[in-house]
Amino acid sequence: MDLQQQIRDMASGAKDASCILANTTTEKKNKALRIMAERLAAAQAYLTTENQKDLDAATRNGLSPVMIERLTLSEKTVEQICAGMLEIAALADPVGEVVRMWKRPNGLLVGRMRIPLGVIAVIYESRPNVTADAAALCLKSGNAVVLRGGSEAIFSNRAIAGVLSAACEDAGLPPSCIQLVSSTDRSAVLEMLQMEDLIDLVIPRGGEGLIRFVVAHSKIPVIKHYKGVCHIFIDSDADPAMATRICINAKTQRPGVCNAMETLLIHHEAAKAFLPELARALMDNGVEIRGCEETVRLVPQAVSAREEDWGTEYLDLILSVKVVKDIDDAMDHIRRYGSSHTESIITSSYRRAQRFLREVHSSAVLVNASTRFSDGYEFGLGAEIGISTSKLHAFGPMGLEELTTTKFIVYGDGQIRQ
Amino acid sequence: MDLQQQIRDMASGAKDASCILANTTTEKKNKALRIMAERLAAAQAYLTTENQKDLDAATRNGLSPVMIERLTLSEKTVEQICAGMLEIAALADPVGEVVRMWKRPNGLLVGRMRIPLGVIAVIYESRPNVTADAAALCLKSGNAVVLRGGSEAIFSNRAIAGVLSAACEDAGLPPSCIQLVSSTDRSAVLEMLQMEDLIDLVIPRGGEGLIRFVVAHSKIPVIKHYKGVCHIFIDSDADPAMATRICINAKTQRPGVCNAMETLLIHHEAAKAFLPELARALMDNGVEIRGCEETVRLVPQAVSAREEDWGTEYLDLILSVKVVKDIDDAMDHIRRYGSSHTESIITSSYRRAQRFLREVHSSAVLVNASTRFSDGYEFGLGAEIGISTSKLHAFGPMGLEELTTTKFIVYGDGQIRQ
Repeated sequence: MDLQQQIRDMASGAKDASCILANTTTEKKNKALRIMAERLAAAQAYLTTENQKDLDAATRNGLSPVMIERLTLSEKTVEQICAGMLEIAALADPVGEVVRMWKRPNGLLVGRMRIPLGVIAVIYESRPNVTADAAALCLKSGNAVVLRGGSEAIFSNRAIAGVLSAACEDAGLPPSCIQLVSSTDRSAVLEMLQMEDLIDLVIPRGGEGLIRFVVAHSKIPVIKHYKGVCHIFIDSDADPAMATRICINAKTQRPGVCNAMETLLIHHEAAKAFLPELARALMDNGVEIRGCEETVRLVPQAVSAREEDWGTEYLDLILSVKVVKDIDDAMDHIRRYGSSHTESIITSSYRRAQRFLREVHSSAVLVNASTRFSDGYEFGLGAEIGISTSKLHAFGPMGLEELTTTKFIVYGDGQIRQ
Repeated sequence: MDLQQQIRDMASGAKDASCILANTTTEKKNKALRIMAERLAAAQAYLTTENQKDLDAATRNGLSPVMIERLTLSEKTVEQICAGMLEIAALADPVGEVVRMWKRPNGLLVGRMRIPLGVIAVIYESRPNVTADAAALCLKSGNAVVLRGGSEAIFSNRAIAGVLSAACEDAGLPPSCIQLVSSTDRSAVLEMLQMEDLIDLVIPRGGEGLIRFVVAHSKIPVIKHYKGVCHIFIDSDADPAMATRICINAKTQRPGVCNAMETLLIHHEAAKAFLPELARALMDNGVEIRGCEETVRLVPQAVSAREEDWGTEYLDLILSVKVVKDIDDAMDHIRRYGSSHTESIITSSYRRAQRFLREVHSSAVLVNASTRFSDGYEFGLGAEIGISTSKLHAFGPMGLEELTTTKFIVYGDGQIRQ
């Protein structure tokens, strides 16, 4: 059977499953999630064996230690995956919620009810835990999922998806609620991206290259973020201790993630008052500083930033630092070089805090807090399927609600239109 | 200057304008809308002259009377446009609204604040009033708009857009808040659809051909509906008088619009009880009936429906009628032939009313009311920029809120991530 037909059959099976799943009770979906967690935990030995095949290939292919670590499905990783599923089972079901209801002058009661999107394709790289996490979130929100992981994790992904799909069946749901594209050929992705009649949403997760490839070829709506060039702006009257604590957290707590700070903007008065001490504290934590002219003057150990530094997501212990005139200068810089991901202001000024919150149009805007909080769990969404830096449908961290839409429902009593 | 550069400059100007508009006060936007309405009213003579050029061309090109009627910018049409703008000025401003706010265990206050989408492209056909309506809705919701109307209305559209853009300037806003692509070449549309870096959303309004063209070529998210094949299902215990009144309204009150009923599904018991009388009432109102075998048996004047009738949007006084076994049979038919637009059930059964509302996943689902209510104004959204039958971002009639998105805002007190 050719690849196109194979993918089409899979997507078509997902569509059928999504019709059933959309009207499945919360109780039954939660039961499925619990069975999924049990089966994964019981399949530990099998998962380890399959994962070892990927790890052997990774070693043969000379993957970096970081990549190998991401790929590893340790006993602890499996435990975390199972715990995550039980947590998702415990979350409120968004489907069927009536988010608002109002009465029209003619007596009609009009409301908006949450329903699933339908079929979601998740296209990702390396981490096999995404297979399980995405499957669980899609199932809870009533969506069928077609998963397409990277070739480097193919044995692990097949093992996980196989266990989960069988668990669905045991819970009385179609096994095609959760399917994995087993071809690792990139043309399989291309085929998926054409099926706008069967797939409702594509979520790519991985490097910028993968995401740009998906966006360039998809006929289906895509929710994505390319990168996170997150800024912190230290205002003139910021508390130096708070500013230092937040900057060290935002830059060094986990530098390889998209909500880490990449550029520090500092008001010239604050720079004069404590940039040398702040830079010292950052450097003591292993951070390399690439600064504007004024920064280099105040911090001689800093290297000069080049123009391209301002738009770079380092994902590493490197920080661009720029001394700015005022909040307007800071917001101009963010508008010019930012990625619409996350920005924070450190200030004591009520007015400037409110201005920053209102006028910066990134997906998350914070006052006096670390950019590292920009995350579905930290924001209290209960889960995270990804982050969107494009504004359509969802903007910022996406939880279960963002995997639904609302339809209008109307209770009438014989009304006709005049 | 070549077309591509010309469109790019226009979109780029719109992007700059959108940054200003996004942070413009409600008062200033409302003032601009009032000035726009005044100027349009004052330009009546100029608009009539320009409109006449389009009407002359339409006559020369042998356009149908219906098309010519759509194209005509009578004094009354202009009055309605101006009244519409004042109504939009009177609506609540969605921008800046905090739709929810909650507290996290670490004390962070997390909320979602509405912000504009940015730059919206509206691509439409024939009716010049869309130029004014779309411009007003985009302005109120803080978005810059790039308009591209059909060649048949080009003189009228240029005149309206010119007046509105100048009115913006007089209100202290950039004239590039409202721009019209003056080229009527289809390649101008193709160029626009590539500019994903500058345009945030495309809304096509018009025939299915135009919409399919836009979807096939757009790199930018598109919100659209292809057609409305709306169903009414008359349940076994429906009140015959109510069912008849609603069916006549849904089919005949304005047959040429997307929320008119196109297919009637009727429970076999109700069919036996009153389909002949119902059909007679419809035929008395000029409706041609294309029925299933059972319908033709009960209503000898009906012609036999062909398979393609079930998926057809007649936009005319023609109705497909099918006798069904029960609610499941009706919902199966809707799933198979429907267009996800609007469906209504006429019933006395509490349980089946609730089932229909829950299980039919069209953008609007009604109980005991005419499908003709599926409309932004009738639902109480205060306005309508279009209707979406795809689920991403908006599903169903779209008002001002649907021209916005939400960003996360966070009030902290020095919190860092553990």
